[in-house]
Amino acid sequence: MSIRTERIEHDLLGDLPVPDEAYYGVHTLRALQNFPITGIPISTYPNLVNALASVKEAAALANHDLGLLPDHKMKAIVQACQAIRSGVAHDQFVVDVIQGGAGTSTNMNANEVIANLALEYLGYGRGDYAALHPNEDVNLGQSTNDVYPTALKIAAYMGIVQLVHAMAVLRASFERKAEEFKNDLKMGRTQLQDAVPMTLGQEFSTFAVMLGEDEARLIEASTLICEINLGATAIGTGINTSPDYAPLVCRHLAGITGIPVITSPNLVEATQDVGSFVQLSGVLKRVAVKLSKICNDLRLLSSGPRAGFGEINLPAVQAGSSIMPGKVNPVIPEVVNQIAFEVIGNDVTVTFAAEAGQLQLNAFEPVIAHSLFKSVAHLRAGCLTLASKCVDGITANRERLQALVENSIGIVTALNPYIGYVNATQVAQQALISGRGVAEIVVERGLLTRAQLDEILQPAMLTQPRQAIAFD
Amino acid sequence: MSIRTERIEHDLLGDLPVPDEAYYGVHTLRALQNFPITGIPISTYPNLVNALASVKEAAALANHDLGLLPDHKMKAIVQACQAIRSGVAHDQFVVDVIQGGAGTSTNMNANEVIANLALEYLGYGRGDYAALHPNEDVNLGQSTNDVYPTALKIAAYMGIVQLVHAMAVLRASFERKAEEFKNDLKMGRTQLQDAVPMTLGQEFSTFAVMLGEDEARLIEASTLICEINLGATAIGTGINTSPDYAPLVCRHLAGITGIPVITSPNLVEATQDVGSFVQLSGVLKRVAVKLSKICNDLRLLSSGPRAGFGEINLPAVQAGSSIMPGKVNPVIPEVVNQIAFEVIGNDVTVTFAAEAGQLQLNAFEPVIAHSLFKSVAHLRAGCLTLASKCVDGITANRERLQALVENSIGIVTALNPYIGYVNATQVAQQALISGRGVAEIVVERGLLTRAQLDEILQPAMLTQPRQAIAFD
Amino acid sequence: MSIRTERIEHDLLGDLPVPDEAYYGVHTLRALQNFPITGIPISTYPNLVNALASVKEAAALANHDLGLLPDHKMKAIVQACQAIRSGVAHDQFVVDVIQGGAGTSTNMNANEVIANLALEYLGYGRGDYAALHPNEDVNLGQSTNDVYPTALKIAAYMGIVQLVHAMAVLRASFERKAEEFKNDLKMGRTQLQDAVPMTLGQEFSTFAVMLGEDEARLIEASTLICEINLGATAIGTGINTSPDYAPLVCRHLAGITGIPVITSPNLVEATQDVGSFVQLSGVLKRVAVKLSKICNDLRLLSSGPRAGFGEINLPAVQAGSSIMPGKVNPVIPEVVNQIAFEVIGNDVTVTFAAEAGQLQLNAFEPVIAHSLFKSVAHLRAGCLTLASKCVDGITANRERLQALVENSIGIVTALNPYIGYVNATQVAQQALISGRGVAEIVVERGLLTRAQLDEILQPAMLTQPRQAIAFD
Amino acid sequence: MSIRTERIEHDLLGDLPVPDEAYYGVHTLRALQNFPITGIPISTYPNLVNALASVKEAAALANHDLGLLPDHKMKAIVQACQAIRSGVAHDQFVVDVIQGGAGTSTNMNANEVIANLALEYLGYGRGDYAALHPNEDVNLGQSTNDVYPTALKIAAYMGIVQLVHAMAVLRASFERKAEEFKNDLKMGRTQLQDAVPMTLGQEFSTFAVMLGEDEARLIEASTLICEINLGATAIGTGINTSPDYAPLVCRHLAGITGIPVITSPNLVEATQDVGSFVQLSGVLKRVAVKLSKICNDLRLLSSGPRAGFGEINLPAVQAGSSIMPGKVNPVIPEVVNQIAFEVIGNDVTVTFAAEAGQLQLNAFEPVIAHSLFKSVAHLRAGCLTLASKCVDGITANRERLQALVENSIGIVTALNPYIGYVNATQVAQQALISGRGVAEIVVERGLLTRAQLDEILQPAMLTQPRQAIAFD
Repeated sequence: MSIRTERIEHDLLGDLPVPDEAYYGVHTLRALQNFPITGIPISTYPNLVNALASVKEAAALANHDLGLLPDHKMKAIVQACQAIRSGVAHDQFVVDVIQGGAGTSTNMNANEVIANLALEYLGYGRGDYAALHPNEDVNLGQSTNDVYPTALKIAAYMGIVQLVHAMAVLRASFERKAEEFKNDLKMGRTQLQDAVPMTLGQEFSTFAVMLGEDEARLIEASTLICEINLGATAIGTGINTSPDYAPLVCRHLAGITGIPVITSPNLVEATQDVGSFVQLSGVLKRVAVKLSKICNDLRLLSSGPRAGFGEINLPAVQAGSSIMPGKVNPVIPEVVNQIAFEVIGNDVTVTFAAEAGQLQLNAFEPVIAHSLFKSVAHLRAGCLTLASKCVDGITANRERLQALVENSIGIVTALNPYIGYVNATQVAQQALISGRGVAEIVVERGLLTRAQLDEILQPAMLTQPRQAIAFD
Repeated sequence: MSIRTERIEHDLLGDLPVPDEAYYGVHTLRALQNFPITGIPISTYPNLVNALASVKEAAALANHDLGLLPDHKMKAIVQACQAIRSGVAHDQFVVDVIQGGAGTSTNMNANEVIANLALEYLGYGRGDYAALHPNEDVNLGQSTNDVYPTALKIAAYMGIVQLVHAMAVLRASFERKAEEFKNDLKMGRTQLQDAVPMTLGQEFSTFAVMLGEDEARLIEASTLICEINLGATAIGTGINTSPDYAPLVCRHLAGITGIPVITSPNLVEATQDVGSFVQLSGVLKRVAVKLSKICNDLRLLSSGPRAGFGEINLPAVQAGSSIMPGKVNPVIPEVVNQIAFEVIGNDVTVTFAAEAGQLQLNAFEPVIAHSLFKSVAHLRAGCLTLASKCVDGITANRERLQALVENSIGIVTALNPYIGYVNATQVAQQALISGRGVAEIVVERGLLTRAQLDEILQPAMLTQPRQAIAFD
Repeated sequence: MSIRTERIEHDLLGDLPVPDEAYYGVHTLRALQNFPITGIPISTYPNLVNALASVKEAAALANHDLGLLPDHKMKAIVQACQAIRSGVAHDQFVVDVIQGGAGTSTNMNANEVIANLALEYLGYGRGDYAALHPNEDVNLGQSTNDVYPTALKIAAYMGIVQLVHAMAVLRASFERKAEEFKNDLKMGRTQLQDAVPMTLGQEFSTFAVMLGEDEARLIEASTLICEINLGATAIGTGINTSPDYAPLVCRHLAGITGIPVITSPNLVEATQDVGSFVQLSGVLKRVAVKLSKICNDLRLLSSGPRAGFGEINLPAVQAGSSIMPGKVNPVIPEVVNQIAFEVIGNDVTVTFAAEAGQLQLNAFEPVIAHSLFKSVAHLRAGCLTLASKCVDGITANRERLQALVENSIGIVTALNPYIGYVNATQVAQQALISGRGVAEIVVERGLLTRAQLDEILQPAMLTQPRQAIAFD
Repeated sequence: MSIRTERIEHDLLGDLPVPDEAYYGVHTLRALQNFPITGIPISTYPNLVNALASVKEAAALANHDLGLLPDHKMKAIVQACQAIRSGVAHDQFVVDVIQGGAGTSTNMNANEVIANLALEYLGYGRGDYAALHPNEDVNLGQSTNDVYPTALKIAAYMGIVQLVHAMAVLRASFERKAEEFKNDLKMGRTQLQDAVPMTLGQEFSTFAVMLGEDEARLIEASTLICEINLGATAIGTGINTSPDYAPLVCRHLAGITGIPVITSPNLVEATQDVGSFVQLSGVLKRVAVKLSKICNDLRLLSSGPRAGFGEINLPAVQAGSSIMPGKVNPVIPEVVNQIAFEVIGNDVTVTFAAEAGQLQLNAFEPVIAHSLFKSVAHLRAGCLTLASKCVDGITANRERLQALVENSIGIVTALNPYIGYVNATQVAQQALISGRGVAEIVVERGLLTRAQLDEILQPAMLTQPRQAIAFD
């Protein structure tokens, strides 16, 4: 039986009852009332919660080093931050992902949860801020304007690492297929028109190479993300901090996270600039564009089964239409296409929010963060799903691939060095009008023997630069 | 004690255990496994769940009219749909908002939940589909390709109605402020440079007018949304339906929802076209642009308190910076700006998804729906929050407004008809160089008396077209 | 031998030599020096030049009516404006399409050219502004802030009319093809997978219907464009104008242009708002999305000639690859796709520029205008080109269309009512595994006779809702 | 009197008369007829024309090395290419910047102009292709699909170099101002609300740092651009080329251009991938976002002269309003804002075109190139204009800057370490209510002496991290 279910907390607007079981406090509660927008709490992004805990721990250690925070407070704060990073109290990070105030409510939410956890460790009750204060102690020497962007960067870095891993999984899946299909000759197509032969392995290796390049771009973007402004305080001038604070807190943060963070050389610039987020968003968009193109190709190549390209089969993962028996649809590539469209839209949101920054701060970082974190998480899910639910199970329709090459007019290009451009053109025209195959016309005309054709049309001869064969 | 917690269901991929308490079935479960993307279930959009229930109820009634669905099945399905619309079983609509398959999984999720609810009413257990089948009975005469777009349109219509209401609330708030401030003369600004006088009431009435125009555009877009393709089945040819079905089901749907739906004259076109969603998204973007502009203005006008424009005060709703005592920030306009940026990004997502439709269907409607529904819901939340948490509490700094007008050089424009352009220019230049006021210079030069100036500079004379005063 | 090739003009920055042959003056020259951005002059948009001349003529007539502009000046100005609308002196509209100053330089350019033309008619030399002044006479009672947006709207209206006409030409081309192909049965496809039969005529009629709907939306947007703010002057308060001016000038402008312009009820709002441009841009984006989708379909349907869908042939309009003899590419749809991509990007530019408007004016209307006018002109060119260079010459591969239907498994859907869902599924599975046709399997199994099949599979039975045939 | 003004050329569509003076031929003429879209010829981008000439020269040299092109043809082609790079015949590059065919028309235009120039050097007439053929000789061993993307990359590289230079000019301009204003204390602002002091020099140095970072990102993007696919021919398999060709032509191209081009390790991937263009576009968007933010700040800081921030003055470069005497507007920042909006829109166009690539080629590279080249050229013009027409002439309103700091409440933050947070809060509240200055209240209350205040409030103490002063 409970005799007290609320505690009273106070801010500049007056008193407010806070649910007694809550680790967050009055500032968080104000934010809940002020921003009932998406219903999605910041705890949706565990990387962000963990990043906030890392920053707060680093600040506590630095302040302790400088003699500004006593031992027992430091230890309690550190313990609280480590608990959060181990998964404790994530459900207490409740403010909406879209919020006004340049991240102040997120910072306040972190300060309050950490303070109340620390108070618990010290034997106090929730809300006994005289013993350890969210603002005076947990936020000591900090401002939302340096804590928040730093935490976003730590979280983004963590997200990039996870995304790169998922891309590598998908890349490996394509590489295995490229190896599996390396001897399957097929028609290449440009502008959706039949062009010249290649192997299906070459087609799939292309997807792997694209992903590999994008992994490299993401890693590049992650190094920009490592430049932080912790120590800048309100606007980058570092007002009310010691000159020793910024290097100290950066060193602690690197130690805690294992991320090679460095302090920006110009903190005024670093506090207002969101360029590294714009860059990251641009690279995520690039990843999305590639993934979407790959999925478009998979859908095209598997179109059919009878009235399409029909070159490959995607594994069936669910029933298609109820009205059309046996229909199986490329649902996995389709979901990845949609993730890509979302990421591309998110990039526009990031661009708008970045451009709207004014003077010494960008007040719109929360929606930048929300957009980036969504993009990273959904792209990661998309890559893993595409690998395991689709690419791993792709099979080739070898007979159709072969028939399309043999039946193709495009193959005549490869005969140019042997029968000459004029003969080739005549053969091509006869093939188009008659609907017959190039090879049989060439043999019929006595231009080449079937044996010579077979030699010329070997995959290894068609699918890479080579010297013309000298027939006697 | 439970001896059985799962039931086995079957689809073309084989058997799958379904949690026994689930009202959804095997197709929904496949979708959960295939699309672990955002973690956001479609139940996040109650309008969509209710719209699906409305469509299924209308189809059951039409099929019953045509003699295709027996009485007891029709009644059970109708009861299930009405229960859902009253709020029952929304938590059973679990498939991810971003999904492949052109909405098939959403349609299947609805079929299964309705079937199992209906089975319950008929005294059967969940999964006893021999008695009433999700596909054969609930989905009778339907295809995802007509059910899903129709449900999206119903849901969008409901959302628009809610959004228009929220905009009207915000508009009324601005109208009250326009009335309150109608006599407060202030300097107008163009290109951020001082221009000529106006009233603060005129400035606020502008915001109200903008919102009113956007309400009209939204209502216009909602009429396009009323054109549905129910009866089109797979690709719009209405294969396997009676010619009577489409008009019947449309009539029932209009009756159930109270929405003036009509059947599209060309169902093949209507089945593949997402033009009305693109149009709606464009209008939502327009709303976002206006709201963002309004919030930019509110933030500019309230900039300060000392080093900014300082013309109005926004109510304080939470503490600003912890490091800067007493700082209060425009957090409510800031959150609305961010909603606007998100909506603008969503429009790009919708554009991409719309453009990617191929041949007889657009497979990317799920992400179109997700984007639109997000935009509608967040804009609505933003309008209500902006009205209640910000605009209602705005106050004017009357002394400063007055001082800026009196101190302004721009006021000289109004003197042109009395002292001539040449004198006006000289007065302006003297004012700029000396830092003095235009009025005192005019009086000092004997161009006009203080009394004449007072008459000329009455708000009613300055802030609307008027004949010049004839002084003797 | 020339003894004088320059004249000296004067503005607030001092003297500047102007080429003597130029009809523009010092303000235009400053703009040329200040904005060397794109190298594209505003004369690229003849509609804009003609619209400016219309507005200036209307203002001169209204000012004359009000007794503010003497007869001879009015007549000379009107003559100049009419000459411009007949094509005279367009090359004198030289300021860059991207310019600062909210259109002031464009307005000044018009004032100067009209003044110098009028001076010529009155027998004066260029630059003799004492006799008739660009600012005092041509710009009398006006501000850039009402002239410029009004001219943009007039020009946009003219452009929409031209675009709608081009779309109607393209629509008619699709309608002719729909008629030509109305009996050609083919497989419909959803999600790129074979679905159920339809006619090629239905497919082409879809394109026509889409265009027709977009024409309607454009006409709708054009009515919003008709609301002008002429008479608003600097910020909408109509400072220094008579209450009679706004209605008078609107009436004259309607008479001159034949466009049903009306004066906005709230001129303060109308002066700062660019909502109707945002709306128009959204509709142009919608048109672009549809055109791009149509071109994607044309490219898909004509893919091949051997290894693609190969259902239709686009006319060859130029050689394809030099390296691949006989290759013909879908270059006309491709160029229309690219126009669409440009228009979609332009919409984002318009959105950004609209959102950036501040307080009583949007200073970024020049780039809004540039974006819109480009979109309108290029879409128009695209529609006309697509009609004459591509659609008019499309032919159907009737044998292949027929073979794909007969060979299709999807056709089995139509047999459900006759052989039952279980039999249909078995037939479909046998067809998929064996590679054989559905029809022969059905006959072989004795489920239906060839005659019955022929009756069931008539186009009229497959491609619209119908009652099932009763075979005895 | 002319007896022959046309020559007849031939392609697969038949004969076509070509104006005799034209250096281009039949393929170019077809493209002129097929793509009457923008009216903007590719010669608008001299970098592109020069890049095409470089690629063709490199190919001629490589083919000569391989014994495939005789001496006299090689020399004539090289001479033609060098002439073009020196500015000859640019007006002959007439095909529209938006064109179908994946750049084939641009490649053909180059082949024809080079061939006819070469024929001239060899003593033949235009069109005597038996002596030297556009396709057989100038295009030898090449395909549009490797020539065109390679030329785009060379041209983009040249453009980046020019843009980086312009950015450095602007950066230097900001750096000079940062130095000039380094001792001018002012109020910093976050979320448009007064925050804490900084120097105007710090504010301007921020702009310089932002530009410097973007220069670094552009240089980074330019290295990606250096990876070319020359030797890939049709689809990347290098069909009909010698294995020695690709390395040879790359070496020649590097020598001719001085650009460190390398051959992509996977030519199939490189032929279809436009990732490096997407990346570059993303970086250009980033530059645009920063420039726009900087211009927004310049416009805010110079708002006024009386009713705005009024901290700095932008130089007047043209008259503002005709109706408002003496008004001067921030037209240069405004034009740069608009360039930024255009570039952001272009990025969306590039994204769409990139995503639309299918299988072995992206057919939409022309609009990608057009968008990128516009962005690069306009950003360059914007940077140079902003530097010379605006930043170089900016002056500070020192008295106002000083007054705003002294009058500010925000300055109280700096007193925390001396008078304590409680006292500071009381002082702040008294200041806000009374409208009085913080300093006088502090002295009046006896908390600090005027001398102590002067020491604490020195710029060097306020604008960087420092130890608190120990007063006895």
